[in-house]
Amino acid sequence: MAVTVYGPSYSTATARVIACLEVYGVEYRQVPVDLVAAEHKQQAVLYGNPFGQVPVFEDGDLKLFESRAITRYIAKKYKRANGPDLLKEDNLEESTMVNIWMEVEAHQLDKAVQPIIFQLLVVPVLLGGAPDQKIVENSVKNVEKLLDVYEARLSESKYLAGDFFSLADLNHLPYLHYLINTPYASAITSRPHVKGWWEDLLSRPACQKVTANMKR
Amino acid sequence: MAVTVYGPSYSTATARVIACLEVYGVEYRQVPVDLVAAEHKQQAVLYGNPFGQVPVFEDGDLKLFESRAITRYIAKKYKRANGPDLLKEDNLEESTMVNIWMEVEAHQLDKAVQPIIFQLLVVPVLLGGAPDQKIVENSVKNVEKLLDVYEARLSESKYLAGDFFSLADLNHLPYLHYLINTPYASAITSRPHVKGWWEDLLSRPACQKVTANMKR
Repeated sequence: MAVTVYGPSYSTATARVIACLEVYGVEYRQVPVDLVAAEHKQQAVLYGNPFGQVPVFEDGDLKLFESRAITRYIAKKYKRANGPDLLKEDNLEESTMVNIWMEVEAHQLDKAVQPIIFQLLVVPVLLGGAPDQKIVENSVKNVEKLLDVYEARLSESKYLAGDFFSLADLNHLPYLHYLINTPYASAITSRPHVKGWWEDLLSRPACQKVTANMKR
Repeated sequence: MAVTVYGPSYSTATARVIACLEVYGVEYRQVPVDLVAAEHKQQAVLYGNPFGQVPVFEDGDLKLFESRAITRYIAKKYKRANGPDLLKEDNLEESTMVNIWMEVEAHQLDKAVQPIIFQLLVVPVLLGGAPDQKIVENSVKNVEKLLDVYEARLSESKYLAGDFFSLADLNHLPYLHYLINTPYASAITSRPHVKGWWEDLLSRPACQKVTANMKR
């Protein structure tokens, strides 16, 4: 039986979950949610997320929320069917490195990129306003500083958690996809190891499919 | 050999890590870091956190950062020595519930309580200014709304992830300790299930020791 994802393709958190399903080749049904009409707030209980956010993930009777907890669930469940081991739970040091870089994505990168996306994509397209260029420029500086650390890390190992592709890398897809489609793409492309890592991520058919859908 | 924690006891992220060490009875050495003098920024590389934040955790040659990744490491490592199983990694549904409520702590509760702590404790004590009461009141409203969801959850199960104590509960200790010591303690104490859950958390000697040190 297919699983169900409630959320629109352009939502970064929804895209994160779908990217993980695509990597494992899991069959899924997607139910779009109209965020502009605040459908997710009004029907929070119906959708199964008491905090009124997308995505919600349904697998039989199980209703899950929080995108990074959902991607952990998918990685754990489908690894058992000989899928890729994106969490490395059987290895204390490797799993810890995956966890550290998942936290960095969630608490550092995501937070730094979010205001840029909000100002450049949400404000003009959804709210019909003009971006606050000062917020954008300060945020770009923060992102540049963070990506200097990524550059150093990725010059030591091929992927963030080590020389293996993990959920820490995959979770970065949605925000970096939006960032690279702004005038500030060079934050990524001017750093050779970050650029190579991003191209490696995007060379995966699963990632290409998800980012193509985010553009709609 | 004892592990080392770099960070002051009043830092919520440091307290989170120390609470976990205390629960497992792990021997540790704590190296205070002067946050006001920005010692952690200046010596980021020395301390082993490229993002210049506390805590940093040292176990032999291994240097770890990001408090929630560190608590996962501790729970995983010391469970093996017959400690409590705070992650439930062997059970897909239980571990997923732990992960969901760890994400809720990190992305919802922490974010909502942080401005209250900043205005009421950091601004007057460390910065010598006056709290912005409007920020405080808006944040309290956000916290109240979140804790309504917690109340509903905790009326269904004894702990956040189910009827078992987990890292999702323990990770809440530092922020809720500060919140309950503000004039807005009733956000916790007026909700019977949240209050009972908090008292259960605080009944543990490990949690008492950590919160006593946070007061210094």
